[in-house]
Amino acid sequence: MTDPALRVTYTVRAAPDAVAGRAEALLLEQTVELPRRALRGRAGAERVLGRVERIEPAGEDAYRVTLAQPLAATALDPAQLLNLLFGNSSLQPDVVLEDVELPEALRPALPGPRAGLSGWRELTGVAGRPLLATALKPMGLPPGELAELAATFARAGLDVVKDDHGLADHAFCPFEARVTACLEALDRAARETGRRTLYLPNLIGTPERVRAQLSFARRAGARAVMMSPMLLGLPFLAQLAGDPEGLPVLAHPALAGTGRIAEVLLLGKLFRWYGADGVIFPQAGGRFRFTRETCLGIAQALRSPAAGLRPALPVPAGGIRVERAAELVALYGNDCMLLIGGSLYEAGSELGRRARELVESIARAAREGAAA
Amino acid sequence: MTDPALRVTYTVRAAPDAVAGRAEALLLEQTVELPRRALRGRAGAERVLGRVERIEPAGEDAYRVTLAQPLAATALDPAQLLNLLFGNSSLQPDVVLEDVELPEALRPALPGPRAGLSGWRELTGVAGRPLLATALKPMGLPPGELAELAATFARAGLDVVKDDHGLADHAFCPFEARVTACLEALDRAARETGRRTLYLPNLIGTPERVRAQLSFARRAGARAVMMSPMLLGLPFLAQLAGDPEGLPVLAHPALAGTGRIAEVLLLGKLFRWYGADGVIFPQAGGRFRFTRETCLGIAQALRSPAAGLRPALPVPAGGIRVERAAELVALYGNDCMLLIGGSLYEAGSELGRRARELVESIARAAREGAAA
Repeated sequence: MTDPALRVTYTVRAAPDAVAGRAEALLLEQTVELPRRALRGRAGAERVLGRVERIEPAGEDAYRVTLAQPLAATALDPAQLLNLLFGNSSLQPDVVLEDVELPEALRPALPGPRAGLSGWRELTGVAGRPLLATALKPMGLPPGELAELAATFARAGLDVVKDDHGLADHAFCPFEARVTACLEALDRAARETGRRTLYLPNLIGTPERVRAQLSFARRAGARAVMMSPMLLGLPFLAQLAGDPEGLPVLAHPALAGTGRIAEVLLLGKLFRWYGADGVIFPQAGGRFRFTRETCLGIAQALRSPAAGLRPALPVPAGGIRVERAAELVALYGNDCMLLIGGSLYEAGSELGRRARELVESIARAAREGAAA
Repeated sequence: MTDPALRVTYTVRAAPDAVAGRAEALLLEQTVELPRRALRGRAGAERVLGRVERIEPAGEDAYRVTLAQPLAATALDPAQLLNLLFGNSSLQPDVVLEDVELPEALRPALPGPRAGLSGWRELTGVAGRPLLATALKPMGLPPGELAELAATFARAGLDVVKDDHGLADHAFCPFEARVTACLEALDRAARETGRRTLYLPNLIGTPERVRAQLSFARRAGARAVMMSPMLLGLPFLAQLAGDPEGLPVLAHPALAGTGRIAEVLLLGKLFRWYGADGVIFPQAGGRFRFTRETCLGIAQALRSPAAGLRPALPVPAGGIRVERAAELVALYGNDCMLLIGGSLYEAGSELGRRARELVESIARAAREGAAA
């Protein structure tokens, strides 16, 4: 290996006398896809041959295996990077992708966040407390009703309203009509309250359609968007994040539950490296089953220094009760955005009142946190 | 639900007294993302509210749950279809996506194969036996050496040579130089042998780069391509498959090992529905761990009638020994393509001879199968 290394760590299930061979096979699987005996006489293969750097016990018949792969093997391309990390080995159930170090030399392959954590603060004008967001739902409502909900949330003082991630270009709620109606509703609310709530339209479709949606949203006045990188492809996120005509992106974790890539790596690191300015993840104790430790790990990874990338905004979500909001401020501190949907909607006709109470409880929790 | 239904089957782990509630929550999670009590007064939600159609025991504390979701919820969009099937529920480890029925009414959302099984026969001129393919590797070789390998395989009589799926736009092997060199080498071999071997360049990168690669490959004379839908995004495959300027696609399973979507559904059905003309899958008994039953299930799904879609070509691969080729002809019949790489490369300088032996053994196995 004549090249800077990319360190990739896996958990591998293997018997003690088999793990060295398994690690060697994993190394070769991700680049040359040939056993060493078949590489004889193929000058050039050494360019992309890494090495097994460390094998450590990680429980019974389980090992943490760290490979040092040559950076050249990534072609500095975001799709090939993903392939190098877990392309073929994703098909081998004895392997879990645990962690990757981000070397400075890989930066040309990865746009990272356009605006990042501080960008969301600029876009919303919120300082000194967590941001508060909710989702426009349920799917099935026409644009006018979603826009009315957006206005209700804006008047209650929420900082961000986003489309539910299942809002697509439905016949009963076309993308363009929805974006126009929601932006207008928030304009009207801003004239009343003096404060503009940020609206994030959900981009979903083929890359071609998503680019058309982005372009429409931008012309209509949207200042940030949402998308689901695992539905649309992480390389497409990288393309959008690197596009000078793009907008900050809140990433949704739909289809991200592989169980074979550690959640902290996928949502906390890869999403950000590929360009997410903020990342939604399922909060422990809601209707998903992430642990508290995983959630804190994701939030920490999103906000940590990483080869000069901007920090990204952690966005816990997924069944957070209004009553738990203050607890989450204590857990994550101010640099997060709480995304609370269902618990507000259960208030029915009292939705606006419940949203105002939420806004007040967060302001109080942030003040108490600052005083403590 | 006032709409044709999309039937989606999951395996859900739950206690007997909890499964009905779990199925109801799964139903709502995939569309409205709200509990029923929060839907009161939201006229429109009924448009996308499906129903739990069947709950059957599937082992201890496990159930097969079939949901009937309204087709309207898909927006007839390939990305939103994926989201409806397994967006949020992929994050819930008690749920596995098992199967989906393809209703005729969903066809506008899905291009299906452009050329399909019969298209590969037209492209290669091969009838009455399985197609034979190999991969150009290892990564690290410059274009000239890969092209020389391609010519060796062509002279030996292989029908298809494809780039290894890790061949990207590497500095030491740029995409355009590789495609040009390989196509020229196969032209020269065709002038000698009178028979043209088909070359499949691997497209990999952001959608923007992949479109440029496709356009270059097409102009250079490529008549089909390879890509990895789980790396690049299934919606992007659908876009390419629906593009009048596109080419037939062989789909590679890199990153497809979620363990949470049944392999037969993902590789045998979804890949084809989204536009794959052929699908590579890891053969049982090689270095991956698919079972024989899974492999046969994938092959059968790819070739079965499905709402008028063309059948697609099953391509078993992944550590197939030359000696096993005849056995696989017996297993899959003639309508498949055997993809054999490593076992040829291990012959070193005898690569050409080993490849010719393989071609002869397949011809023999097909004749014996026909005579039997």
